[in-house]
Amino acid sequence: MARLDDQFAFLLEADRLKQVNRATTLTDGSRRENSAEHSWHLALYAMVLADQARPGVNIDRVIRMLILHDLVEIDVGDVPIHSANGAAHGSAEVAAAEARAADRIFGLLPADVGPGLRALWAEFEAAETPDAIFAKSLDRVQPVLHNIASGGGTWVEYNVTLEQLETRVGQKVARGAPAVWEYLRARMRGFFGPA
Amino acid sequence: MARLDDQFAFLLEADRLKQVNRATTLTDGSRRENSAEHSWHLALYAMVLADQARPGVNIDRVIRMLILHDLVEIDVGDVPIHSANGAAHGSAEVAAAEARAADRIFGLLPADVGPGLRALWAEFEAAETPDAIFAKSLDRVQPVLHNIASGGGTWVEYNVTLEQLETRVGQKVARGAPAVWEYLRARMRGFFGPA
Repeated sequence: MARLDDQFAFLLEADRLKQVNRATTLTDGSRRENSAEHSWHLALYAMVLADQARPGVNIDRVIRMLILHDLVEIDVGDVPIHSANGAAHGSAEVAAAEARAADRIFGLLPADVGPGLRALWAEFEAAETPDAIFAKSLDRVQPVLHNIASGGGTWVEYNVTLEQLETRVGQKVARGAPAVWEYLRARMRGFFGPA
Repeated sequence: MARLDDQFAFLLEADRLKQVNRATTLTDGSRRENSAEHSWHLALYAMVLADQARPGVNIDRVIRMLILHDLVEIDVGDVPIHSANGAAHGSAEVAAAEARAADRIFGLLPADVGPGLRALWAEFEAAETPDAIFAKSLDRVQPVLHNIASGGGTWVEYNVTLEQLETRVGQKVARGAPAVWEYLRARMRGFFGPA
């Protein structure tokens, strides 16, 4: 049963994502969110906000991407988007470490399963296909909701300006789900000073 | 934007599932697992163990079911399968409370979204369609893996016998994924006394 050994080795390893904490808190601010429950929440976002996707987006592929998208954090940890004044997230160093993590983690799976899942993760990271663009936009929307609900959250903690938020978050949300960004923008202005 | 108001009200409400704790711990035994991260883990199980499903099972529908399947616990809490000597889980009282919770929670959504998701939840609960049977089998497999990994876990805590495990867990796993139950059975015998 070497095949099931490999499948379960991967699934047990994946359990560790429940111990990777993000900068964002739960909506009630009671504790930081971990990357496993965050990934669950995003899959639900995809199901519920499917009507906000551009024509041609395959929601089932988006859901699969979102389930996988943070697994590399088991090795690399979460790199908050506003940390190091926005310079750490997406840096070449972080990208290289995440690629090594993807090799290791998806490499635990049987050869007919692992490469397909690794390719789906790489597609998400590249953010070039319509499915990946929509998935990325949801990944940026959820912390905005939590920060609004918890009275500013990581925007206060990292001293983020409205302009930085537009660059780091708004442009990415608007690319995949423009009406959602318009909606959120109107609701978060109160957390920032006059432009 | 009443539509997005309703969609986000549901997604914010769903955040509360991250605070519903299950009987099962993480694989390292460090803390109890919550129902949101459990649901994420099961979606990953469906992706990775798809080859164990019977012919005709639609894995994308299974993933959607698993993402939704525990949302009613926001109102009802998790009812451990081995609690009250196996009598609480699936009782008429619990089923009625969960149906009321489903009405409330899925009722937050727009009328063209909520009923479809509620129907998918009801299909999972009924466990009659091939998709629901496979989804239920994964829901029973995951705690077995965690109990093996953590040295007995809830089997020790609830004083479960191998016979009770066969009835409460084994039959349901075997119905959807027979080879998986055979595999797990061989690996968990050591946690129970001689039959």
